[in-house]
Amino acid sequence: MSRSQKKAQPSPPVNGVVRIGLLGLGVVGGGVAEIVSRHRRLIAERVGVELRVVRALVRRPTNRRHGAADKVPTTQDPAEIIEAPDVDVVAELLGGLEPARDFILRAAAAGKPVVTANKAVLAAHGAEIFSGADTAGTDVYFEGAVAGGVPIIRTLREGLASDRITSLTGILNGTTNFILEAMESGASYDAALAEAQRLGFAEADPTLDVTGRDAADKLAILTQLAYGTRIRSEDVPTEGIIGLTPEILADARELGYKVKLLAIGKRVTAAKNSPLDVRVHPAFVPAGHSLSNVPAAQNAISLVSDALGPTLYQGAGAGGLPTGSAVVSDLIEAARNLRAGIAGRLTVTGAKATPKPLPSADAVSAFYLRLSVRDRPGVLAAVARILADHRISLGTVVQRERGLRAEQSVPVVLISHPTTFGSMQKAVAAIARHRSMRGPPAVVRIEDAT
Amino acid sequence: MSRSQKKAQPSPPVNGVVRIGLLGLGVVGGGVAEIVSRHRRLIAERVGVELRVVRALVRRPTNRRHGAADKVPTTQDPAEIIEAPDVDVVAELLGGLEPARDFILRAAAAGKPVVTANKAVLAAHGAEIFSGADTAGTDVYFEGAVAGGVPIIRTLREGLASDRITSLTGILNGTTNFILEAMESGASYDAALAEAQRLGFAEADPTLDVTGRDAADKLAILTQLAYGTRIRSEDVPTEGIIGLTPEILADARELGYKVKLLAIGKRVTAAKNSPLDVRVHPAFVPAGHSLSNVPAAQNAISLVSDALGPTLYQGAGAGGLPTGSAVVSDLIEAARNLRAGIAGRLTVTGAKATPKPLPSADAVSAFYLRLSVRDRPGVLAAVARILADHRISLGTVVQRERGLRAEQSVPVVLISHPTTFGSMQKAVAAIARHRSMRGPPAVVRIEDAT
Repeated sequence: MSRSQKKAQPSPPVNGVVRIGLLGLGVVGGGVAEIVSRHRRLIAERVGVELRVVRALVRRPTNRRHGAADKVPTTQDPAEIIEAPDVDVVAELLGGLEPARDFILRAAAAGKPVVTANKAVLAAHGAEIFSGADTAGTDVYFEGAVAGGVPIIRTLREGLASDRITSLTGILNGTTNFILEAMESGASYDAALAEAQRLGFAEADPTLDVTGRDAADKLAILTQLAYGTRIRSEDVPTEGIIGLTPEILADARELGYKVKLLAIGKRVTAAKNSPLDVRVHPAFVPAGHSLSNVPAAQNAISLVSDALGPTLYQGAGAGGLPTGSAVVSDLIEAARNLRAGIAGRLTVTGAKATPKPLPSADAVSAFYLRLSVRDRPGVLAAVARILADHRISLGTVVQRERGLRAEQSVPVVLISHPTTFGSMQKAVAAIARHRSMRGPPAVVRIEDAT
Repeated sequence: MSRSQKKAQPSPPVNGVVRIGLLGLGVVGGGVAEIVSRHRRLIAERVGVELRVVRALVRRPTNRRHGAADKVPTTQDPAEIIEAPDVDVVAELLGGLEPARDFILRAAAAGKPVVTANKAVLAAHGAEIFSGADTAGTDVYFEGAVAGGVPIIRTLREGLASDRITSLTGILNGTTNFILEAMESGASYDAALAEAQRLGFAEADPTLDVTGRDAADKLAILTQLAYGTRIRSEDVPTEGIIGLTPEILADARELGYKVKLLAIGKRVTAAKNSPLDVRVHPAFVPAGHSLSNVPAAQNAISLVSDALGPTLYQGAGAGGLPTGSAVVSDLIEAARNLRAGIAGRLTVTGAKATPKPLPSADAVSAFYLRLSVRDRPGVLAAVARILADHRISLGTVVQRERGLRAEQSVPVVLISHPTTFGSMQKAVAAIARHRSMRGPPAVVRIEDAT
């Protein structure tokens, strides 16, 4: 619901200075401190108020920090940020669920606008957070929470506010994009991951990235903005990149595709009550498609909407400065609204009739199948029979050169025409049970829509 | 200067309805009427106010129009839009300089927010228009004026407000992008232009497009937003695509490039007082560069900024619905601000120290040269001598197969290392005077920066 009629009483800036309290002074918090310090004059000229970082909550105040972050006064008491009278805007940069959720709610309850770059907390507790801010008559900003270097949140909230989005396809996780690019050059999954970790593109525990969880969190946020549909991150059908092998990536290249971890949210049909097909999984994307060329560690979002048609937004996915820049753009927005004495200018969602998520079994796409079969006559016929029984027809079939010895396993690569995920799952289960199979089939969706 | 402290008295929306008056009901005006009608409920839900098109200024009220446009009440008296008490926001969609300039100034003087999609009037009279709105305490919005389907204005005004842009490279004209793509497939310039006209991508008089004038208008607007530098469109060094031949495009392909009409505005060095290199011209762009793949009739803008790094924005360049959508997003912004009772939330520019334009002779790039020479021994040596005299060194040299008869002309293709445009102009003038030349050399810049 709109909260347009609410009266908000945000503190007016004192002497044209908007005072910022940081919760966290790590990579992103340090980036924020750096940008605010480096671009202080430019921001003041453009916005007409000065941003000043007055205090940061840290765990270890004695740590040496780099650059501007080292000059920020620190505290170990969250109340000195959240409830402090000399803090106008709070930036939550801790990540994770708790205490981030608690701090955001308390800061909002204290009437302070909150900027967060924390997709996890929004994906899990977004409803509670936005309604808490709503009740307190203040705002929550979160440009940095999704695709840090791509101003997609602002685009969805403002640029496309008049338009009806029909499809959203994103590469929302730079780590997996890096790993897939390395695997394309022949590296194994393990080697690619190790390289990503060595270069700082993957964390020591990469679980959230490689399982697709991080992308699903971001997709849940984008889906709500694009369609008004509130979907919990854990309800997004999600597959990671762990099962991918260099053979699959080589097949993709040979067939004219690249493999990308896609986050998809699209209306199934043009009908008003069309359900929403939401999912995260690796997919074959045609080489030449704009998403196929997104470089390692970048993010991109391809949108299709009624009036605008296709649009593409691409940039750095993470990192202290890109995400910090998104946070600072939110701080500026908060400062502008404080200056103007308004809150609730943008509602997060007001849509009443929101599309319902499609059961994942009903989602339609073409599929790549890689079977490892004993080289026996008739196997291909049997597989085609099983697929036909599930009403799946085939496009391409590639049978590799035969092994030198009889009974050796050979790969068979199949490309299906579009079918539902449910049909394909059943067919693959039946194929896996066939006596000629050597190991489970590999299955990857093919996405060639814009 | 900021106009933050001004008190504006915009009319509050009556009963939650924001009443729109359209100046013009052509392709874009019709698109606006269509979107507002088709997405009426969606906009009301998202924004909390209803947009209603109450009247449109037209030349011929008896014309039949398509769809929602046919239901809009029309008038031939501009005052019934500009000064009408029942119009809250004015959308200027006439194009051209006059009477657009006059109408915008009068509407602003009447205290009405103005939305315009008219790049020409902003490029020529932007200073007067923004200061007029400033004085009246109202706002001028212009997302539709540049790259209709790409929300680049909002991105520059808000998303990147905290960042320091170092480079902006755009494909800002869909018509020339279409023509160049057709020429890539071997069509002559004339045939490609005729095809663009037949399909509605080029107007009957394509002068503004093919001379680069339209792109220069848009670049002037973007340059002001990105750097605060007020540069008049006619002061942007501009070359169109008229001199390009299928041979040049074939050379480009062979050398691994595509030819695009680029609009460039970049800081020359990282220094604070670095001048701004601003220009519009065709250029060789490496195949695989994100700007090389922008499809016909689309626009794209590649930005590089300090904190965000490289970002890319791509979408439809023109057309009633894409541009109409940009106009409606501005109408929504205006409605939100009317509802909140504010104006001047975003200043167009407040930067004091703005970079100065670089003299075009000092702009540096690599160059492609195509010479048509009599097949005489020693010509290449003479050309290399001339280039060396101007301190230009060569990268690639491609000499085509010899003609069958002696003295027949043969093409020689040269790629220089980066040099100034001034040096290259002098060298080319000297080369053109050489007795072995058959006709003037073709010269195209090579741009491979992000």
